[in-house]
Amino acid sequence: MTVMNANEDVDREVVGTSDAGTEPVETQSHDSRTFTAEELSAGQQAHDLDRAHVFHSWQAQGPFTPMTVLAAEGPYVWDGEGRKLLDMSSQLVNTNIGHQHPKVVAAIQEQAAKLCTIAPQHVNDARSEAARLITEVTPGDLDHVFFTNGGADANEHAIRMARLHTGRTKVLSAYRSYHGGTQLAVNVTGDPRRFANDYSAEGIVHFMPAYQYRSYFGATTEAEETQRALQHLEDMITLEGPSNIAALILETVPGTAGIYGPPAGYLEGVRELTSRHGIVFIADEVMAGFGRTGAWFAVDHWGVTPDLLTFAKGVNSGYVPLGGVAISDDIFETFRDRVYPGGLTYSGHPLACAAAVATITAMREEGMIGNAERLGRDIIGPALHEMAQRHPSIGDIRGMGCFWAVELVKDRTTSEPMAAYGGSSPEMNRVIAAMKSGGVLPFANFNRIHVVPPLNTPDDDVCFGLEVLDQALSIADGYVN
Amino acid sequence: MTVMNANEDVDREVVGTSDAGTEPVETQSHDSRTFTAEELSAGQQAHDLDRAHVFHSWQAQGPFTPMTVLAAEGPYVWDGEGRKLLDMSSQLVNTNIGHQHPKVVAAIQEQAAKLCTIAPQHVNDARSEAARLITEVTPGDLDHVFFTNGGADANEHAIRMARLHTGRTKVLSAYRSYHGGTQLAVNVTGDPRRFANDYSAEGIVHFMPAYQYRSYFGATTEAEETQRALQHLEDMITLEGPSNIAALILETVPGTAGIYGPPAGYLEGVRELTSRHGIVFIADEVMAGFGRTGAWFAVDHWGVTPDLLTFAKGVNSGYVPLGGVAISDDIFETFRDRVYPGGLTYSGHPLACAAAVATITAMREEGMIGNAERLGRDIIGPALHEMAQRHPSIGDIRGMGCFWAVELVKDRTTSEPMAAYGGSSPEMNRVIAAMKSGGVLPFANFNRIHVVPPLNTPDDDVCFGLEVLDQALSIADGYVN
Repeated sequence: MTVMNANEDVDREVVGTSDAGTEPVETQSHDSRTFTAEELSAGQQAHDLDRAHVFHSWQAQGPFTPMTVLAAEGPYVWDGEGRKLLDMSSQLVNTNIGHQHPKVVAAIQEQAAKLCTIAPQHVNDARSEAARLITEVTPGDLDHVFFTNGGADANEHAIRMARLHTGRTKVLSAYRSYHGGTQLAVNVTGDPRRFANDYSAEGIVHFMPAYQYRSYFGATTEAEETQRALQHLEDMITLEGPSNIAALILETVPGTAGIYGPPAGYLEGVRELTSRHGIVFIADEVMAGFGRTGAWFAVDHWGVTPDLLTFAKGVNSGYVPLGGVAISDDIFETFRDRVYPGGLTYSGHPLACAAAVATITAMREEGMIGNAERLGRDIIGPALHEMAQRHPSIGDIRGMGCFWAVELVKDRTTSEPMAAYGGSSPEMNRVIAAMKSGGVLPFANFNRIHVVPPLNTPDDDVCFGLEVLDQALSIADGYVN
Repeated sequence: MTVMNANEDVDREVVGTSDAGTEPVETQSHDSRTFTAEELSAGQQAHDLDRAHVFHSWQAQGPFTPMTVLAAEGPYVWDGEGRKLLDMSSQLVNTNIGHQHPKVVAAIQEQAAKLCTIAPQHVNDARSEAARLITEVTPGDLDHVFFTNGGADANEHAIRMARLHTGRTKVLSAYRSYHGGTQLAVNVTGDPRRFANDYSAEGIVHFMPAYQYRSYFGATTEAEETQRALQHLEDMITLEGPSNIAALILETVPGTAGIYGPPAGYLEGVRELTSRHGIVFIADEVMAGFGRTGAWFAVDHWGVTPDLLTFAKGVNSGYVPLGGVAISDDIFETFRDRVYPGGLTYSGHPLACAAAVATITAMREEGMIGNAERLGRDIIGPALHEMAQRHPSIGDIRGMGCFWAVELVKDRTTSEPMAAYGGSSPEMNRVIAAMKSGGVLPFANFNRIHVVPPLNTPDDDVCFGLEVLDQALSIADGYVN
């Protein structure tokens, strides 16, 4: 099974990066670190130990030759040869504040000195303050936070809350989505990573999303896409039985599945439909949340408040594993006198929460949300749209903030993708390799390159990354029919 | 639903601790910290924010009045009034090295300064070294490590590996077990926490465990229990169809479910049965592993090597969220050329792995495994067995290392429990409150008090905790028929 895009030569499944294309064709001009022979040797040793003992996510373990990271700072990483790379992937779209933000590092160190861990049933000041800050930035009445370790278990618990709140079982979720790797989270996922895990999916029903570039409804305008996608969703609800449906889970802006934001009116329509039928609306903001789209949460762009909002990644840039569910007052009431039958040892982990407090504070103090909005509006968006004029391989450009997708095609008329759904291709692998050769770590998935840098990446670096992409797209152009 | 034991007055569901019994009857004699008025006030503020915004694990949120923890060090915590308590629960049986071990705190701080996070597809030196150290202490050929965020996802991924390795779907798991809170993990769980979550359980089949004190097989001797429990398991395998069964998951020594270690020969028999039928044997050592039983892993006591071994908690004492699956060479081979369809953003998180490296190193340098074994053999075991002579409320004593259960009954002849399966009782609540009044945080579940201190708790403190338990048992004696 091939679940991700891959680089050339071997059929590797990676998100964005591996060893291909590490030959130094030309590196970027920014000042760089130097590494001693001992440091380089330690990196090699780490690589050898990794190959002997570390089992990696979403990989065939044998042919996989991972890149060693010797160091990382801000939007940069240094590979095993000491070569500096601009990280346009924010790792797995989680380092929204970049690597090693000094205030967050200091907060982790201080909390480590004070209290590393405590059981979830106790009161901890870092946990309380993180919950306060998170509910301050979440919309509407999402005033309660259940902390998890990451996005997958956040979505699992959100679905459980919805099922118990409604007394119903079914869950609607979209194709072309990703909600996490644990069993229930992968069951509601709508991408090929689900295929090998497609059991124990009681009550999970997938619907067609609003995805205008490749409309499932034959729509030719945004208004038509919205109208037809909502009609389809309403039809699905009718045909599945509204009184059976506990929840609808939807990435506000689907992430790895293609950064295809909802067409105007769609999200409001989803809110109206779910409210009308007593269905819990779970907005998955694991990737889109905490500033990625140029707002605290993507739902803010459309003025929509879901019943449950799940988060992870950006909440503390992944500096310490953390996820969670922001819960409405109404759903909280269900569990005021009734036991919530779920939990985990590390719920509200002090180190993770201290990192969240420092991250949210730094994002505010340094205006990162506004900066992300500006980068999208003034730099990334215009540059990509300008490239689309010159590169026939670009089928679609879409995004906002620091959250953009470039969809590559062999033919603009037929929209034939540069790699099939769920697969890789030699063409895409050469584009990826060219970006790495040019000094950029890209995020790639199927026939798409995502432009998802940290929200505080300096303008010059963003421009540099876009230039490298521009050059790599010339390679893609060569494959256009 | 009542899922846990609770304290008196209100029907709260807690593991071990809440606010009941915090009135200072008499505190222990050890030197204590003092807290300023500001610190106490900050604790109160944290409590108020918690009640406003934090949604807690396994609780009804309304009546729950959690204990504030102002500080923690070694085997002690200080509550919201600044009162020192000996933590005989190791939080949720995870702080095997106690709180704030200076070497582990320093390692976290150093790693934070170096590199907090990196995507799972890259090579990271802390991750490589953690994998090396873990595979050094795991038995047999469990030479590969897939890192997760905790025990629940470790078990979920172990089951997935087993299903893909065998091409089969069914999973056998024991009643009276706990395997985690996410959907698949709670499906295989065999305690009342599963009841409200009992859907999407395709292929999960529960069997009766070997539990000699309340034998499900009418056994009167250990040999009889072993023989009959293995015959039952073999019958279940036959009746479910051996060629349909992917995995058998079993806590080597079931933890929260009662610390009932396998009778002699049982684990060896499970290994033989699973091997004979090509069933993957998953040993869940999330709670029992990393020294808790006085060996690195509980399976070491019986010389058994499972195919997959799951861990979390003790691997780094929960200082940073971490879990994982140790994988045999045979199962690794399945995924050498085939993609493993599972993963997570924080797999092999550098901070968590650095904490694991420091924890395992400290456990070795300070002889904590041997100390746990000695504490069980020379102090805890003898003291509990001596108490059993004097307290008619003690129905059974069992354990090893720093992992002991005291089962309380109203009648030794009938073994009528002091609280029903899945429930609490006023009698148990008074025992728990008395322990807290005496200066000890206990771990309680149904009709049991677990004695599960950190492995490096000073002998005097262990003795103090046992004295407090001894006094509290006099209360229990008053309820004996």
